[in-house]
Amino acid sequence: MKLAMIGLGKMGGNMAARLLRNKIEVVGFDFNATVVNEIAAKEGMIPATSVADAVSKLEGQKIVWMMLPAGEITENQIKDLIPLLSKGDIIVDGGNSNYKHSQRRGAMLAEHGIGFMDSGTSGGIWGLDNGYCLMVGGSPEVGATMTPILQALAPNAVDGWAHVGPVGSGHFTKMIHNGIEYGMMQAMAEGLELIKGKEEFNLDLAQITELWRHGSVVRSWLLDLTAEALKDDQKLEAIAPYVADSGEGRWTVVEAVEQGVAAPVLTVALQARFRSQDSQGYSYKLLSMMRNAFGGHAVKKH
Amino acid sequence: MKLAMIGLGKMGGNMAARLLRNKIEVVGFDFNATVVNEIAAKEGMIPATSVADAVSKLEGQKIVWMMLPAGEITENQIKDLIPLLSKGDIIVDGGNSNYKHSQRRGAMLAEHGIGFMDSGTSGGIWGLDNGYCLMVGGSPEVGATMTPILQALAPNAVDGWAHVGPVGSGHFTKMIHNGIEYGMMQAMAEGLELIKGKEEFNLDLAQITELWRHGSVVRSWLLDLTAEALKDDQKLEAIAPYVADSGEGRWTVVEAVEQGVAAPVLTVALQARFRSQDSQGYSYKLLSMMRNAFGGHAVKKH
Repeated sequence: MKLAMIGLGKMGGNMAARLLRNKIEVVGFDFNATVVNEIAAKEGMIPATSVADAVSKLEGQKIVWMMLPAGEITENQIKDLIPLLSKGDIIVDGGNSNYKHSQRRGAMLAEHGIGFMDSGTSGGIWGLDNGYCLMVGGSPEVGATMTPILQALAPNAVDGWAHVGPVGSGHFTKMIHNGIEYGMMQAMAEGLELIKGKEEFNLDLAQITELWRHGSVVRSWLLDLTAEALKDDQKLEAIAPYVADSGEGRWTVVEAVEQGVAAPVLTVALQARFRSQDSQGYSYKLLSMMRNAFGGHAVKKH
Repeated sequence: MKLAMIGLGKMGGNMAARLLRNKIEVVGFDFNATVVNEIAAKEGMIPATSVADAVSKLEGQKIVWMMLPAGEITENQIKDLIPLLSKGDIIVDGGNSNYKHSQRRGAMLAEHGIGFMDSGTSGGIWGLDNGYCLMVGGSPEVGATMTPILQALAPNAVDGWAHVGPVGSGHFTKMIHNGIEYGMMQAMAEGLELIKGKEEFNLDLAQITELWRHGSVVRSWLLDLTAEALKDDQKLEAIAPYVADSGEGRWTVVEAVEQGVAAPVLTVALQARFRSQDSQGYSYKLLSMMRNAFGGHAVKKH
C-alpha cells in the first residue's frame, strides 16, 4: 500500500516513519523541506516538493493523509486537493478538527465522489514506538480500504484503532477523549499541589507518584509521565503557571451545553486553564474593589 | 515474622491471605467467626476468638494490624489494645482514618511507649493477587520493623510501598489519592455520558473504552475496569444513579479549604456525588419556584 502524508510535524513525521517501518509506502510533503529530506534519508520516504507533486507520485486509488493544524489550513488544503483527486480517492484528516467541520467536509467531498475519513489520533510523541490510538469515522467502504494503514499506525493489528461510526464520529470521539484528559490532568495536579502544600509532612512528590504507579487506583499513563518528570525536578521553578488549551477541551464543554448534559468537572478543568492564561485577573480586581466598597476591606495594590 | 490482623473483611481478609502466602505468620480475628475459620482452613492463618486471644498468640515485639472501619470502631479498638500491649509493640491502622485522628492517636500511643503506623492502603479486591499500594507514616524505627511486612503486601519488595513521612502522613497521602480518584472517575464518567448522548453517531462505549486502552493519553487502570464492565452491559439499567462517598473525598476538599488552595475539580467531583445522593433536589425546587415567581415560567409538578 501507498499513501501521501501532508504535514510532517511531530505527529505527521513520526506517523510517516511508523508507516514506512511497517512496509507502507509513504510519499511525504511539508513546507519544511529539511524535514522532508531527513525522513526520506532516514526512513526511506519518497520526498515530494509540493502537494501536487506528492499526489502525482501515487497510483490507482489515491490516499492522502493530512496531519495539519485544525481550522483554515486544513480547510484550504482539502479544497486544494479536490482538483488533484478523482472519484474513489480518499482524504484522511488526522488532525484535531472540530467534528462538525469534518461532517461538512465529508459531505462536500462526497459530492465530488471523494471518500473522507476523520481520524482522531492520540499518542503524542510516544506514538512512533508504542503505536497510535486511532478513532476513525467514515463510510464502511473507506474504512475497509484504510484498514491496513490503520493497523500499521496502531500498537498492533487488533488493538488501539477502531472505526467507530460515520464521518465526524472519529473527531467527536477524540474530542471527548481530550475533554476527559483535561479533567484527569486537573484532578491529578490539584491533588499533588495539596501534597506539596502540606509543609508539616515534607512529602516527596517523586516518591509518592512513583509509589502510586504500583497497585493504586489512580495508576495511569499520565501518572507514569508525571512520576518520571518529578524525579528530575519537583520545584518546577522554570515552568510558568500557564496552561494552553487547544480546541477539543472547549468543544467538549460546548457539546455538553448543546446536549444539555451536566459535565461540571470537564467544564471546570477547562476554566482552570483559562484562568491560568489570564495574568490580569480582572474579576479578582472587581472582587477586591467590591469588598472595599461594602466593608472597607483593604485593597492590595500593585 | 508474625502479626495479628484485626478485621478480616474484603480488605483485611485478603491482606491476611497475601501475608500468609508470602511466609508471614498471621493470627486473625474478626467478629465473623465463619470468615476466621475459612481463612484459617484455606490459608493457614492462626485463628483467634477475640482481640485479646489474638494478641496473646504473638511473641516478643507484638505487631497488631487493624483493618477496621474508620471512626469510632477504630478509635475504640486502639484504646482497647493499649492494656494488651507493652512498650515497643506496634499498632498499624490500615483503614481509611482521617490523618488528623492518626496524628492524635500516634501521640497518645507514644505516651504508652507503643509505636504507631498509619497505612493508607489502595488496591481494593485486586490487591490479593496484584499486591497493595501502601502509603505509610510513622517513626523511622517503626518503619524499619514493618518493612518486611510492607514488602509482602506490596506488589514486590521495591515497588508499591513507601514510608512517606511521620505519623499521619500515610493517611494524608491516601486521602489525597482518593480525592484524585474522585476527580479522574468523574472526568471519565462525564465524557462517556456525552458519547452515549450523541445519538446521531450511535457509538459503542465498549468499543471506544477498549480502544482508548491502547496508546491513548487517558489509558489507566480505571479505564481498564470501565472497559471490562461495559463489554457486558453499557445500558447500566440495573444500577441506580447514586454514588456513595467515603470520607477521604470530603477530607480532601476540607484540606484544600484549610490550605487556602483552589482545588475546583476535586471539589466539584465530590459535589457531583452529593447531588447523586439527593433524590429530593430541594435547590431545584427552589429554582423552579423562583423562575415561576419572577417570570411566570411553568413549574413542573410531581
